[in-house]
Amino acid sequence: MCHHPADSILALNPRVKTHANLHSTASKKNEKKHWKRNPERSCDSCVNLENNFDDIKHMTLSERGALREALRCLKCADAPCQKSCPTNLDIKSFITSISNKAILSNNPLGLTCGMVCPTSDLCVGGCNLYASEEGPMNIGGLQQFATEVRSGIQSFLQHTKCRRASTQGLFSLVAALARLGYDNITIFERQKYIGGLSTAEIPQFRLPYEVVQIEIDLMKDLGVKVVLEKGLGQNGMTLTSLKEKGFQVVFVGIVLPQANRDKIFEGLTIEQGFYTSKDFLPLFAKASMCNCRSQLPKLHGNVIVLGAGDTAFDCVTSALRCGARRVFVVFRKGFNNIRAVPEEMEVAKEEKCEFLPFLSAREIIKKDGRVVGLCFCRTELADFIISAFGSMLNDPEVKKALEPVKLNAWGTPEVNSETMQTSEPWVFAGGDIAGLANTTVESVNDGKQASWHIHKYIQSLHGNTVSTTPKLPLFHCAIDTVNISMEMCGIKFPNPFGLASTPPTTSTPMIRRAFEQGWGFALTKTFGLDKDLVTNVSPRIMRGTTSGHIFGPGQGSFLNIELISEKTAAYWCKSVAELKANFPQNIIIASIMCGYNQADWTELAKMAEESKADALELNLSFPHGMGERGMGLACGQDPELVRNICRWVRKATTIPFFANVTNIVDIARAAYGGMNGVTATNTVSGLALKADATPWPGIGRGARTTYGGVSGNAIRPIALCAVSAIAKALPGFPILATGGIDSAESGLQFLHAGASVLQVCSAVQNQDFTVIEDYSLGLKALLYLKSIEELHNWDGQSPPTIRHQKGKPVPCVEELVGKVSISMASHFKKQNSLWCYFWLTFSDLALKHIGVYQKLDNTEQVKALVDPEMCINYGKCFMTCNDSGYQAIKFDPETHLPVIMDSCTGCTLCLSVCPIIDCIKMVTRTTPYVPKRGLPVNPVC
Amino acid sequence: MCHHPADSILALNPRVKTHANLHSTASKKNEKKHWKRNPERSCDSCVNLENNFDDIKHMTLSERGALREALRCLKCADAPCQKSCPTNLDIKSFITSISNKAILSNNPLGLTCGMVCPTSDLCVGGCNLYASEEGPMNIGGLQQFATEVRSGIQSFLQHTKCRRASTQGLFSLVAALARLGYDNITIFERQKYIGGLSTAEIPQFRLPYEVVQIEIDLMKDLGVKVVLEKGLGQNGMTLTSLKEKGFQVVFVGIVLPQANRDKIFEGLTIEQGFYTSKDFLPLFAKASMCNCRSQLPKLHGNVIVLGAGDTAFDCVTSALRCGARRVFVVFRKGFNNIRAVPEEMEVAKEEKCEFLPFLSAREIIKKDGRVVGLCFCRTELADFIISAFGSMLNDPEVKKALEPVKLNAWGTPEVNSETMQTSEPWVFAGGDIAGLANTTVESVNDGKQASWHIHKYIQSLHGNTVSTTPKLPLFHCAIDTVNISMEMCGIKFPNPFGLASTPPTTSTPMIRRAFEQGWGFALTKTFGLDKDLVTNVSPRIMRGTTSGHIFGPGQGSFLNIELISEKTAAYWCKSVAELKANFPQNIIIASIMCGYNQADWTELAKMAEESKADALELNLSFPHGMGERGMGLACGQDPELVRNICRWVRKATTIPFFANVTNIVDIARAAYGGMNGVTATNTVSGLALKADATPWPGIGRGARTTYGGVSGNAIRPIALCAVSAIAKALPGFPILATGGIDSAESGLQFLHAGASVLQVCSAVQNQDFTVIEDYSLGLKALLYLKSIEELHNWDGQSPPTIRHQKGKPVPCVEELVGKVSISMASHFKKQNSLWCYFWLTFSDLALKHIGVYQKLDNTEQVKALVDPEMCINYGKCFMTCNDSGYQAIKFDPETHLPVIMDSCTGCTLCLSVCPIIDCIKMVTRTTPYVPKRGLPVNPVC
Repeated sequence: MCHHPADSILALNPRVKTHANLHSTASKKNEKKHWKRNPERSCDSCVNLENNFDDIKHMTLSERGALREALRCLKCADAPCQKSCPTNLDIKSFITSISNKAILSNNPLGLTCGMVCPTSDLCVGGCNLYASEEGPMNIGGLQQFATEVRSGIQSFLQHTKCRRASTQGLFSLVAALARLGYDNITIFERQKYIGGLSTAEIPQFRLPYEVVQIEIDLMKDLGVKVVLEKGLGQNGMTLTSLKEKGFQVVFVGIVLPQANRDKIFEGLTIEQGFYTSKDFLPLFAKASMCNCRSQLPKLHGNVIVLGAGDTAFDCVTSALRCGARRVFVVFRKGFNNIRAVPEEMEVAKEEKCEFLPFLSAREIIKKDGRVVGLCFCRTELADFIISAFGSMLNDPEVKKALEPVKLNAWGTPEVNSETMQTSEPWVFAGGDIAGLANTTVESVNDGKQASWHIHKYIQSLHGNTVSTTPKLPLFHCAIDTVNISMEMCGIKFPNPFGLASTPPTTSTPMIRRAFEQGWGFALTKTFGLDKDLVTNVSPRIMRGTTSGHIFGPGQGSFLNIELISEKTAAYWCKSVAELKANFPQNIIIASIMCGYNQADWTELAKMAEESKADALELNLSFPHGMGERGMGLACGQDPELVRNICRWVRKATTIPFFANVTNIVDIARAAYGGMNGVTATNTVSGLALKADATPWPGIGRGARTTYGGVSGNAIRPIALCAVSAIAKALPGFPILATGGIDSAESGLQFLHAGASVLQVCSAVQNQDFTVIEDYSLGLKALLYLKSIEELHNWDGQSPPTIRHQKGKPVPCVEELVGKVSISMASHFKKQNSLWCYFWLTFSDLALKHIGVYQKLDNTEQVKALVDPEMCINYGKCFMTCNDSGYQAIKFDPETHLPVIMDSCTGCTLCLSVCPIIDCIKMVTRTTPYVPKRGLPVNPVC
Repeated sequence: MCHHPADSILALNPRVKTHANLHSTASKKNEKKHWKRNPERSCDSCVNLENNFDDIKHMTLSERGALREALRCLKCADAPCQKSCPTNLDIKSFITSISNKAILSNNPLGLTCGMVCPTSDLCVGGCNLYASEEGPMNIGGLQQFATEVRSGIQSFLQHTKCRRASTQGLFSLVAALARLGYDNITIFERQKYIGGLSTAEIPQFRLPYEVVQIEIDLMKDLGVKVVLEKGLGQNGMTLTSLKEKGFQVVFVGIVLPQANRDKIFEGLTIEQGFYTSKDFLPLFAKASMCNCRSQLPKLHGNVIVLGAGDTAFDCVTSALRCGARRVFVVFRKGFNNIRAVPEEMEVAKEEKCEFLPFLSAREIIKKDGRVVGLCFCRTELADFIISAFGSMLNDPEVKKALEPVKLNAWGTPEVNSETMQTSEPWVFAGGDIAGLANTTVESVNDGKQASWHIHKYIQSLHGNTVSTTPKLPLFHCAIDTVNISMEMCGIKFPNPFGLASTPPTTSTPMIRRAFEQGWGFALTKTFGLDKDLVTNVSPRIMRGTTSGHIFGPGQGSFLNIELISEKTAAYWCKSVAELKANFPQNIIIASIMCGYNQADWTELAKMAEESKADALELNLSFPHGMGERGMGLACGQDPELVRNICRWVRKATTIPFFANVTNIVDIARAAYGGMNGVTATNTVSGLALKADATPWPGIGRGARTTYGGVSGNAIRPIALCAVSAIAKALPGFPILATGGIDSAESGLQFLHAGASVLQVCSAVQNQDFTVIEDYSLGLKALLYLKSIEELHNWDGQSPPTIRHQKGKPVPCVEELVGKVSISMASHFKKQNSLWCYFWLTFSDLALKHIGVYQKLDNTEQVKALVDPEMCINYGKCFMTCNDSGYQAIKFDPETHLPVIMDSCTGCTLCLSVCPIIDCIKMVTRTTPYVPKRGLPVNPVC
C-alpha cells in the first residue's frame, strides 16, 4: 500500500553501495567515450575555423566565472599586481567591484588592455597567489569582464573608467591632458580609421573592433579633433610645419610601419604566396572590421609562419580563419626561447598548429613563380608563407618629416625614458616608435607619462611652475556628482556609511584614518566609567564556521568575545573633541554603557555631550561579558529598564541619542519616544567548538570560553528581519542598521528595509578602510542608474545570461532595455534631482512587500524551468528534488538532462542548488496547484 | 595631541587614491622584476635537477589546496567521473570525505592510481565542471591527498581503503578473491621485489616506492604468499607445472618484458651510450628505491629520448636527474599525435626539455665506438640515446611456459575481454600481457574483473552456481565494527543521525529511502488536524546569502517560508504504521502541531501514539506562517503555555515526547519535567532582499513575503549555543539537536555540547540521502581513533602543516604522536569497549569549557607568531591589524613579510583572515598584558 514513486524517476539517484562494481576494462573503454567532455587526444579531425570569429581567449569569463574568480582575490597590501602593471592599475579595486557585483559599483578601466595584455608577464606574474596551489588570479579575464558590459549602462560607467589611471594608446595622453585642462588637441592619423595597432593588426577575435571604438568615442567626447588620412611625411606635414601652424607640443606615437624581412624573401609578393605580418594582419583586420568577410585574405593548404613572437601567433590563428588547412610555426631557436606569452601560444596549440623549432629558412621553392615550399635543410611544403620578424622605420619621407629630432642607430627618435621628450623639447614620443614599450599597455603608459611632462613644458612656456610631485587628476564623471548625504535627527551625514562601535574604532587615529578614506560617520568603541574599566582576554576574535574550510579574507562571519573599549572615558571624550575639531563634516557618535544606575548614566552622558559628540549610542545589547556586570544586554532585554535609562539620559543631555538593541520590537518600542532612534542589531550569540570538544576561542590552559557574538554577512538575514520589523512597527523612527553590510548593494537592502544610516565592522575586518570607496561610489552609481527613466524597471541585478556554456559572453543590457544613448552633458544636469529621488524613492521601499504569511497568495504559484543549453548535466536539481522535495524532476540516463514534471510544487530548492546562473528559472504556473494530501481529508484512520 | 601611530607602520596600508599614479615605462620594467613570482620566460638558466627527487606532479595538493578543491565538487548524479574510471571508483564519495576533513571520515582508495593515472583522459576528462570556466576537478590530486596521509592513523584507515572498489595491480585480484573467501593464494615474482611496473619503471618522484610498499603490505596482511625470483619459464615453472602442483587457477599478470627497438640501434649497448626505456627506467628505479643514489645511471651533456609516449617523458625527467644537461624528445609525428597525457608532457616542458617533431632517426654517429650523435637528416649531437618505443614479449622460454594457452599474432595470450579468461578456462590474464589495459588503473581493473570470473570458475569445479549479477563484497575493517547506537528515553537509536521534520521527510517513500541508506531515525514532517491543513506558496526555499556569490550545492544556508506538511494526519499515521512494520530497528518520531487547545492536542497525540510512533515531537517553535494561526512559535514562547501543552499531551499518551523549542532556556525549563526532552533549535527568523527592494522569495505579482527561517551551517554557532545552554541548565535532559549538522565532525560538536541525537536537513538539501554514509563512518572512525591510547591527546584536527609553499607535502602524524603500530587483529578486540567509551567520554565533553566571561583568565594571554616560510606576503594580517585592531604588525616594504610587535594584544583577527593554514599561530604571551587606557584613569576630562 505504500506509495513508491515510479522507479524510472529514481533510477539514477545516488545510493549507498552494498557491493563493489564490476565492469571489464574493455566495456569501460567504450563507456568512457560517452561521458568524455574534453577533446580526444591524437585526433586529426580539426574543428573548421574558417570564418570563425568567436572569442578564443582562455581567460574570458562569464558572470559566474568572474564572480567566483573575483572572490579569490586577496586584495594584498602594496599589491604586486599593481606594482607589475605598466600603468599602475589599481587592480584589486576593480576586482572588489566585481566581487560586490560590478554593475552597481565603481567600474574600472582598460577594455583593450584587458584583452591583449600579456598578463602572465605583468600583473598575473606578480600575483601572490602564485605561492598557493590554486595559482594566480585570472586578472586579464576579470578586467575584460569588468569593462566589456557594453550598453547604455556601460556607456556612462565608462566615464568613471579612468578614475585611477588612464588607458588606451593616444587616449591615455589626451585623456590626461584633458584632465589637466588642455582643450585644443588634434590627432593626425595616416589611415582612414584611428585606433593604431589595436585596430590595424590585432585580430578581431582577440580584440573586437567595437571595443576599440568605445574608447575612440570616449576620446572624441573629450573634444579632441581627429584628422584622418594625414600622416607625418605626407603632403608636406612635418614636425616643423606643425610647429609653424602653432602647435606648441607634438607627441609622436606612430607605429613602426615597415616589416622586417629576411633577405631570402626579397621581391616576393602576396600573389606569389608570401606575406609579412605587416601585410597580412591589416588585411585580416580590415576585412573583419567592415564585416565584409569575403575580403579576407584567401588562404588554403599548408601555411608556414616564420617567427615565434606574439605577432606570429596572431598570424597563425588568423590564417586558420582565412582557410589554411594546416599551419606550421617555424622558429630559429628552441621552445625555451620563444618570445610569445604562453597564453598566445596555448591557443595556437589548441587549434592544432604544428611547431618546428631550431629551423631557419634557407631557400624558397617556387613553381610557376609561386611559393610551393620552403627549404630549411629539411623541406616543408607550403602554399603560403607569412613572415613575422618584427618591424622597423625605413620610410625616408617620415624620417625627413621628423627633423630636427635626433634619431638613434635604429632610425627612431632618441627619447628620455622618464619624460618621453626627444632632443627637441617640444616634441615627445611614445609607444612603438619610442622603443620602450613592447606591449599595448606599455604604450598606454608612455602616453600617460608624457602628458605630465607636456604639461610641465607648456606651463614653463608661460612662466608657470608645476609641482615636482606629479598630480595627475583622476577622472570625474556624472556619478561622482550624485549626492548621497542624508539627514537624521537634524544631523547631516556626508554619506550613510559609518563604522560600528567595534574593533575598527579601537582608537582615535583609526577613526581619523577612516574619515580620511571617506567614511561618513563613526561610533566610538563603547566606553564606560573608570570603575567599569575592562581588560580583554585573548584569543578573542575568530573566523566563523559559516564559510566552511575557506581560509583567508572574505569570511562570511566572525565570532568574538571582545569586550567594550579598554580605554578610559577621559580618553574618548578628549578624542571626540579633537576629531570634531579636525573633521567638522563627519559625524561622531559616542557609544556609552553603564549599569542600571541613574547617576552613572547621567555622568557619562554629560561627559560625552560636553566632548561635542554629535549624538550618543546607549549600548544596551552587548551580548557577552558585560551582562554579568548588569550592563549591556542585561539592561536591554527589559522594556521597563530601557524606558528608565532613556528618561535618565534625556534628562542629562540635549543631543540626540540612540539605543543599540537586538531584534526585539518591544525593546525598540520602549526606546521610542524616549530615544531618538535605535541601532539594530548587535551580534548574535553563538558558540564554536573543535572536534575534541574544546571551544574556539579557548582561553588559557583550561581552554575556557563564554558565548560570543557572531557578526558578518551570515547574520544579514537576521539583521534585515530586525530592521524591517522595527521600521514596520515604528514608521519613521530612525534606525542605524548593522549586521552584514559588505557592499553598496547590501547597504541598500538595509536602506530599503527602513534603515537611515549604516554601520560596518566585519567587512573592514575582512579588508581595510578603503572599502568605503566602493560602497560610496557603488551607491552613487545605483542611484544614478535608477534616475534614468529607461532603467526604471531594472531590478538591480545583472541581466539574464546569454545561453552559452564555458566562457559565455558578457550580457548586453542594451538589448534588454533598448538603446540608451547617454551623453555626459545631459547627465550632469540631473544631479540636483537625485538627492530627493533617493530619499523619496528608495527609503523603506521593501517594507510594503513584507507581511504576515496569510497575506501571501497560494493561488499564484511558480514552477521550475530548466534551460537545457545552460545545463551542465550534473543533476543536483534532480537529487535535491528527490531527497528533499517532490520527485518532480526526471533525469535522462543518456543525456543527463533534467526534465521538470507537472508535479513540481515550485519550492525553488532546485534553483537554490544549481551552480549555473540563470540555468533554472521559476516561471508562473499556469495550471492550478493541488496539494497532495496523501489521504483524503477526514477519513477513518 | 592626538596619538598617531608611527608612519613607518602604516606606510603600506591601502589608501583611497586622490591622484593618478605616474611611473615611466622604463622604471616599471625594473620595478616589475622585484615582484615577479613566475619564472622568467626565455631564460636558459636551468634549475639543477640532478639527484633531485622532489615530487614534480602539478596535481599534488596541500591540505589547504585539497580542502578548497574538494569544496568545488558538485557530487553529480550518475557521476561521469565514476563512469569514466576503469575501476568505477566512487570518486565523489572520497571527495566528500575530504571536504568534511578526511581524517575523520571514510578514507578512500588507490594511492598508486592517485599518482599515476592519466586522469585527464579518465575521471577528469568526464568531469561535468568542464562546462564551467573554472574547469574540471583535480581528481588525481585529491585522490593522492586522501590516501597519502601515512602514519599510525593512516595505517588502519587504509583497511577501509578498499571499501568501494579494489586497487593496485595484482592486489586488486587477491583483495577481491580474499573478500570472496579464498585463502590459498600464491604470487610468483621474477624480480627480487614485487610491485611490478609501479616499482620497476615508474620514477620515484612520480610514485614513491613507500606508497607501493604500503599496498604490498596490505596484500601480505591478507595472507597471500609471495615467492620472489621465480618467473614463468624460469627453472621449469610453466602453467602446466603449476597446475600439476595443485593450483586450480592461474592468473598471468606479467609485464611485457622486452623493449621494442628500431633496427638501426641493433647491437648498441649502454656502455656505448644507448639505453632502451626498459634498460634505463629500472636502473633508475632501483637506485632510488634502495636510497643508494650513487648507483643512478650516470648521464651528462645532451640526451636524446626517442618517442613521445608517457614512458618517454618518464625517461626525460629521469635523465635530468641523472645529470643530463639538456634533453631532446624526438618523435616521428607532430604535436597533434603525441600519445602521452598532457600532464606528463607539461612537466617535461617545464624542466626545459626541447621537442623535435617530425623526425625519425636515420643513422647513429659514433666516435671511438661511442654514440656522439644521431642523424635525422639534420643532425643532433647527443651523448646518450634512450629509445622509448614500447615493449613486447619475445622471450621463447616464457612463451613456451605459457603453453597450452593460445597466443595471438602479437605473441600474447588471447583473452576474453569480459572474463579475462584465456583459451584455457583455468588460466586468466590481465594487465600489460592481456593487451586491454594501457594504464595502471586499467590493469587494476583487469584483476578485479578476473576475480569474479575466477570465483565463478572455481565454484563451478565444485558444482556450485554463482549469482549472475556480480556480488563482489565490499572491504570490511575494524572501523565498521564500532557501535554508534545509543539510547534515549528507553528508545534505542541505531545511530545518532536522523532527518529533521523538514523537506527531506515530505513523504513516506522518502523516509523509507532514507532508512535504506542508513539514517537512524526520522521525524515526520509536522502534521496537524484536518481543520488546520495548509497549502504552500511558491517560491519558498532559497539559498541563503551567507555564501556570497557562490552558486550551487554546498550552500552555507537556506532561507525558507515552507509550512508544515500539506498531507493529512490520516496519511501520516498510516505511514508511520507502515514504516514501523518495515523498519522495526529505525526510530520514527511523529512531529505534531495544534493551536493552544487541549482537545486538539489530545486527539492528535492519541492518533500518533496509535500509529506506533516511537515518540512525539511537539512543534512549538515553527517560525513563520503558523504563528498567525496561534500555532508553533505562538505557543512556544510562553513558558506557561508550554507547561500546559506538556500536561495535556502527557495525559493523552504514554510514549515519550519532546518539544521543538528555540534557544531559550526558560522554555526548555518549562518543558522539563513535563516533557521527555527538547529539540533545539529551529530555523532562525530572517529576511532576504534584492537590490531593487523586492524580497527573495517574493510571492505572486505583488512580490510579497513574510519572515522566513534561516537554516544550514550559518546558524550552527547559534544552535550550538542553544544546545549547550539547555544542557548546562538541565543536566541529563535529552536534547535532539538541529542546526547546521553537515558532517561527522559537526555532529560530534553537538554531542559534545550535550545533544543526545542529531537531526539533519540542509545538508541533505545540499546533496542527497547518501551523506549518511560519510557521517556514520566518520563518527565511527573518530571513536576508533579516540580509543587508541597513543592518540588520546589528539585534538581531532589535522596535524600542523609542514613548512612549505605550494603543493606542500601532506603532514605526517607519525612524527607527532610517535610510531603507532596497529595490526588488524588487536583492533578487532576493542569494539566492545567502544560503546561505553563513547557515552562516557564524549557526551557533554564541551560543557565544562563554557561559562561566564568573568571566569576567563585575562592574565593568560596569547600573541600572534607568523611563520615567514609559509607566508605568501599578501599582508592581510597587517591590514586588518591596522584598520580593525592595534597597529601591532609591521610590513616590510622590500620582502613583504609581516613582523608581529610586542604590542600585539592576541585578538586573533590576523589568524582569522590569513589564507594559509598554520602560517599564523597564537602562542602564549610571556610578558604581562597591559591594556592601553589612552589616558590615565580618573583624570580631569
